[in-house]
Amino acid sequence: MKSEEKLEHKRHSLAHLLGATVLEMYPKAKLAIGPAIENGFYYDIELPETISDNDLPKIEKAMEKMLPTWKEFTHKEVTEAEAKKYFKGNPYKLELIEEIAGKGEKITLYTAGEFTDLCRGGHVEHPAKEIDPLGFTLVRVAGAYWRGDEKNKMLTRIYGLAFDTKEELEAYEKQIEEAKKRDHKKLGRELDLFTFSDLVGAGLPLWTPKGTMLRDILDNFVWELRQKYGYEKVDIPHITKKDLYETSGHWEKFKTELFRIETREGHEFVMKPMNCPHHTQIYARKPWSYREMPQRYASTTKVYRDEQSGELSGLSRVRAITQDDAHVFCRQSQVKEEMEKIWNIIETFYGAFGFALQVRLSLHDSQNMKAYLGDEATWLKAENELRELIKEKVAKAIEAPGEAAFYGPKVDFMAKDSIGREWQVATIQLDMNMPERFDLTCTNEKGEKERIVMLHCAIMGSIERLLSVLIEHYAGNFPLWLSPVQVRVLPVRESHNEYAKEIYKKLRGAGIRAEVALEDIGLGKKVRSAKEERVSYFIIVGDKDIEAKKATLEHREKGNLGQMSTEEILQKLMEEIREKK
Amino acid sequence: MKSEEKLEHKRHSLAHLLGATVLEMYPKAKLAIGPAIENGFYYDIELPETISDNDLPKIEKAMEKMLPTWKEFTHKEVTEAEAKKYFKGNPYKLELIEEIAGKGEKITLYTAGEFTDLCRGGHVEHPAKEIDPLGFTLVRVAGAYWRGDEKNKMLTRIYGLAFDTKEELEAYEKQIEEAKKRDHKKLGRELDLFTFSDLVGAGLPLWTPKGTMLRDILDNFVWELRQKYGYEKVDIPHITKKDLYETSGHWEKFKTELFRIETREGHEFVMKPMNCPHHTQIYARKPWSYREMPQRYASTTKVYRDEQSGELSGLSRVRAITQDDAHVFCRQSQVKEEMEKIWNIIETFYGAFGFALQVRLSLHDSQNMKAYLGDEATWLKAENELRELIKEKVAKAIEAPGEAAFYGPKVDFMAKDSIGREWQVATIQLDMNMPERFDLTCTNEKGEKERIVMLHCAIMGSIERLLSVLIEHYAGNFPLWLSPVQVRVLPVRESHNEYAKEIYKKLRGAGIRAEVALEDIGLGKKVRSAKEERVSYFIIVGDKDIEAKKATLEHREKGNLGQMSTEEILQKLMEEIREKK
Repeated sequence: MKSEEKLEHKRHSLAHLLGATVLEMYPKAKLAIGPAIENGFYYDIELPETISDNDLPKIEKAMEKMLPTWKEFTHKEVTEAEAKKYFKGNPYKLELIEEIAGKGEKITLYTAGEFTDLCRGGHVEHPAKEIDPLGFTLVRVAGAYWRGDEKNKMLTRIYGLAFDTKEELEAYEKQIEEAKKRDHKKLGRELDLFTFSDLVGAGLPLWTPKGTMLRDILDNFVWELRQKYGYEKVDIPHITKKDLYETSGHWEKFKTELFRIETREGHEFVMKPMNCPHHTQIYARKPWSYREMPQRYASTTKVYRDEQSGELSGLSRVRAITQDDAHVFCRQSQVKEEMEKIWNIIETFYGAFGFALQVRLSLHDSQNMKAYLGDEATWLKAENELRELIKEKVAKAIEAPGEAAFYGPKVDFMAKDSIGREWQVATIQLDMNMPERFDLTCTNEKGEKERIVMLHCAIMGSIERLLSVLIEHYAGNFPLWLSPVQVRVLPVRESHNEYAKEIYKKLRGAGIRAEVALEDIGLGKKVRSAKEERVSYFIIVGDKDIEAKKATLEHREKGNLGQMSTEEILQKLMEEIREKK
Repeated sequence: MKSEEKLEHKRHSLAHLLGATVLEMYPKAKLAIGPAIENGFYYDIELPETISDNDLPKIEKAMEKMLPTWKEFTHKEVTEAEAKKYFKGNPYKLELIEEIAGKGEKITLYTAGEFTDLCRGGHVEHPAKEIDPLGFTLVRVAGAYWRGDEKNKMLTRIYGLAFDTKEELEAYEKQIEEAKKRDHKKLGRELDLFTFSDLVGAGLPLWTPKGTMLRDILDNFVWELRQKYGYEKVDIPHITKKDLYETSGHWEKFKTELFRIETREGHEFVMKPMNCPHHTQIYARKPWSYREMPQRYASTTKVYRDEQSGELSGLSRVRAITQDDAHVFCRQSQVKEEMEKIWNIIETFYGAFGFALQVRLSLHDSQNMKAYLGDEATWLKAENELRELIKEKVAKAIEAPGEAAFYGPKVDFMAKDSIGREWQVATIQLDMNMPERFDLTCTNEKGEKERIVMLHCAIMGSIERLLSVLIEHYAGNFPLWLSPVQVRVLPVRESHNEYAKEIYKKLRGAGIRAEVALEDIGLGKKVRSAKEERVSYFIIVGDKDIEAKKATLEHREKGNLGQMSTEEILQKLMEEIREKK
């Protein structure tokens, strides 16, 4: 059994233990459902009294006491009548029993210690032996409607965390605590990077000057890297007739997530949820010779997806997603070379943030070929080329059969952030389907039409999501090259303003994002607000500095770096920016 | 009478003359309607036989012959019965008579020479004397359904052009001929700037690498100018809840032109037809002190309008419009200063294309204050400030009372292109309404909340429309700074390729948009294709050039400019680009 699956079984077993404990402490309680979830478990319970987070320690204690008595899980199949008899008086279990029976499925009861629950299984065999009593904890009480429907009764949900060991639990709790401090929604407001408006709507961030600056810095960095490899920018509208997606096949696949528009003339348009079909139409504008291949088109542009309100969260899940999207239209024989170029861009880009990348190769599932487009031979050939590339890159890749998109295999890149969380950050996707559907070709050396292939290769994927990761990764303390305000010049008194302005102008002239604080509010206040706004460097100008024809450089975290001439400061900053330190 | 109005009366009189002539030549013809239109007139007629453009000269001749007999127009009012009797057998006139009578309006018949027509009036009094017989011409025969409804009978429409003099007519005909050669739709395809796709839909241009380059050059130029005046970029989504436009008032005003979206959860969203309401929400994210004013937000972004299919035309009228939009949020006392900054940007920007600008000041109509927002005193004050600014700018402005938007006066800029056509190119609009509706304020020196105002100031307006103008203005021969491909290096033979590549690399290194033609196809062909693609300069590299350690510079129109060193070429090109010559 995989360790991940085993951990899930522990969590599920702990949900039972939680239910059993609560029932012992509150005999009139009625248990509803108790599943394993990411990082832990919960149980929804109808309680005879209201409880709060303060009650959790004593429940947790009771669980720890009961655990040693749970030597093993046993189970038996029962009839609908038997099950109903057992759970008489519990409307939740009775509803579940009827549902299972209605589908013609088996009804099973699982028992550990003196507690029996209606369950499909998936526990550790010997809880007392296998579960670390210090590896779990109860964290939170919340209200939850039975089956998530607000027309139903509100139950009490008790959440628990569970890991294999006490150490892992503590590491996770620390990560959560750290993540809370770094929450990008909170920092985004404090650093004035983005805002939401009730009039505009949820999931539609509005980007302030500083936030837009950050977006542009990232986008320009990607473009700088792409340009070296022959990419060209193209520009596309955000809408299309649905015909485009009927041809591409996305109409069927993405239906519910598409924002649809009916025009005044009754035509059906949709907002683009991706850019590839539009890019194919630019490629298709004229015939191509093999000499002109590949064509590499890049657009940083927003795509729109009709996400459900409940799913939206800060920048992590939005309805307006800015993609730094690019598509390479190339010959089958050019795939590996082009993939390598994209790989290089991804390495350089994510390397700048100090992210170590992990690679996953998503493959087709040979048991389920009907879920994929094209024949298996083509898939196997393409997948082998990706394996070769991974070998040449001296990278280790996790292989994930069945995880490929329906139109081709892909390489995913995962990064671990500064507090240990793992994010999927970039994908290179081979697409053998869309060129087929749009009949994209080039003329080869023999003068024949040759079917081409496409590569999808957004580097950032979604700028919104990447920024949510980066804000939390840096806890808002962006390195100099990313800082919306890189330097602020702080004259000590008004009499130093002129000298400060001179330095400020030199910095701006060198392309540094500098500001100068001329208000008459005292140095202490100026330093404080520069620190709050996470300005990278402050240049302090007082009598002694002017006398020495120098200025004092301070760093947000490193503190006073001493007196330097403007030229020395410029040189230092320019180097730090250039090297993205 | 204004000369414009008089010209329209001439055109209307000529429509009568056309009808009379056709009736004389084809006595069984039935006249329908014959109005004056821009640049001329037409008459829709049911003809007993099919005619073509070849028949027009003899009709025109007959009109010239009849004109001297039309000494004057006379008219009389008649009853419905009299009118019907007069036009017995002509179903079109009968239908019109019933309509006029139905509305309770007067029925009038106008007579000149021996021809009488049902008409509301609007002719010159003495056609023979006032109309230049060489100032008009018939140009085209077309089919037209009666009343534009395809369920009705197809009539023959004869189009004529008419001006005050022969010279003006010829100038217009020449302009049309020249414009046809320069048609941006044709040149856009030839120069590979943009394309349309049937799958994506009409009015939704897809921009190729070269076209996107052009767009970006223009947009960067505007941004360069804006940056100097303290503008900051912000970023906004293309959709919003309709609530935003209900608050702004656009929901009422723009209703039919809005692309609407219903989400899967049943919420009503719309695509933005303008950016100002979104920008207000960025301003509204926090309270502002007078010290922080003005706030100047700029976004180059697409807006969407549900234009009718029949109205779409190349880039001139599209459904996806890219605006270089900016809004200044400022105090009333800062309006003049901010307006002047925008004016400076407009002057520099359009000056770069050699456009001389004319200015129009659109004012409120004091007879109709109820059509405007705010009281007249505020309007007069704001308008006087604009007059002062115009005076300071030493500009002459046409004043247009009643042409202001309901929310504030504006300054329009008009430019004449290289073939004499006039275009409205930019507008500075004062807006006293939206800050009211969104309750936008700043805290003033006294610590009180002060209502602010907004300035709308797109420089290009629509990049699509501006490019349609610029492509035709330059007939595709863009000056160096705008050329998507500025220079192409052309080695004479393959043996010169290495040297050519060196020059190419130096050019690219200096940021020049250069290409190198390494194919083995002969110099003649290389030059030809560089000229067809309107590359500004070619650098030719042959034996003699390499011997002399130089290269030969040729300009697309100016031809051979002689042998120069790479450094000399670079210097020359860089200067020409910098000075936008």
